[in-house]
Amino acid sequence: MPHIALPEGLPGIVSAFAFRPETASPLLELAEILLRGPSPLTRGEREMIAAFVSTRNDCYFCQTSHRAAAAHHPGCSYDLVDAVRFDYPNAPVPPKLKALLAIADKVRQGGKHVTAEDIAHAREQGAGDVEIHDTVLIAAAFCMYNRYVDGLATYTPVDQPGLYDEMGARMAHEGYLRAAETVS
Amino acid sequence: MPHIALPEGLPGIVSAFAFRPETASPLLELAEILLRGPSPLTRGEREMIAAFVSTRNDCYFCQTSHRAAAAHHPGCSYDLVDAVRFDYPNAPVPPKLKALLAIADKVRQGGKHVTAEDIAHAREQGAGDVEIHDTVLIAAAFCMYNRYVDGLATYTPVDQPGLYDEMGARMAHEGYLRAAETVS
Repeated sequence: MPHIALPEGLPGIVSAFAFRPETASPLLELAEILLRGPSPLTRGEREMIAAFVSTRNDCYFCQTSHRAAAAHHPGCSYDLVDAVRFDYPNAPVPPKLKALLAIADKVRQGGKHVTAEDIAHAREQGAGDVEIHDTVLIAAAFCMYNRYVDGLATYTPVDQPGLYDEMGARMAHEGYLRAAETVS
Repeated sequence: MPHIALPEGLPGIVSAFAFRPETASPLLELAEILLRGPSPLTRGEREMIAAFVSTRNDCYFCQTSHRAAAAHHPGCSYDLVDAVRFDYPNAPVPPKLKALLAIADKVRQGGKHVTAEDIAHAREQGAGDVEIHDTVLIAAAFCMYNRYVDGLATYTPVDQPGLYDEMGARMAHEGYLRAAETVS
């Protein structure tokens, strides 16, 4: 049961957005810009970073919904995002993305865990400043979203792959601002 | 030295905002709504929660700037916010705020650390749903801001209390959107 009286029947962060539309607006705008706006990282890569961080933070709602969103982007699939979530060093993704995932995992543990060596390694694999910036901010932002979802003990549907697949398809194809229209 | 080529001379998160104005906008809007918008928590209480979480996350820039912002709000002072930052159970603040700080510290460690008992205790001290919600989201948001600032190794002025005092006064009296106008 959620820790506060969130609207019933809405899953995860969606119930928190409906409870407090004032804060929902910038939270959704951040997701839209960070995960779908212009970036040298593809939308699929960014959703995979989000799903990876949420998996390591053990947030079921975020990891499952962003896993589905990633899978709905071109060049991505459920198998690929699962390989990244559970064993990225051996996943069939480019070395540059692996180096960025290593940085994301350091950010997740705490900003100061990121070393000059981590950054140098990512640069050697072809990552530029904006890719590094966006990786750090995606990882940091999901440390927020994950804590928001679980810190309120929001309602989390489990064993409903169809529900998350539909949600992921909407996130990938329609984006995050449509969700804002729905709840506000 | 910062991990990426952030604009020189700008401190902490301000340099990251200038580097990527697209993401600066929702990040500043979130701070404005969460820390200064309508809430049953006073602005001073919210800045104290932000400074407390940033202190426990060991983020010098955020803890020092939000400490100063808190001190510039009515009913607050540097002594009070420092008592909260370093020893809140013995700080001269109401039991309700202490119960909310305990929740904030749990969120900081991970959303699932928050227990039904933590929430029940806060309610016994007079906290309602919106106060609990805002506490959880402030704590979660500063887990993001702290990681963003330190994950990029942004430039952090130290031993410059006057600089942070001025910054805190602007944050308290002019808010966060003015900063957005400056950088975008």
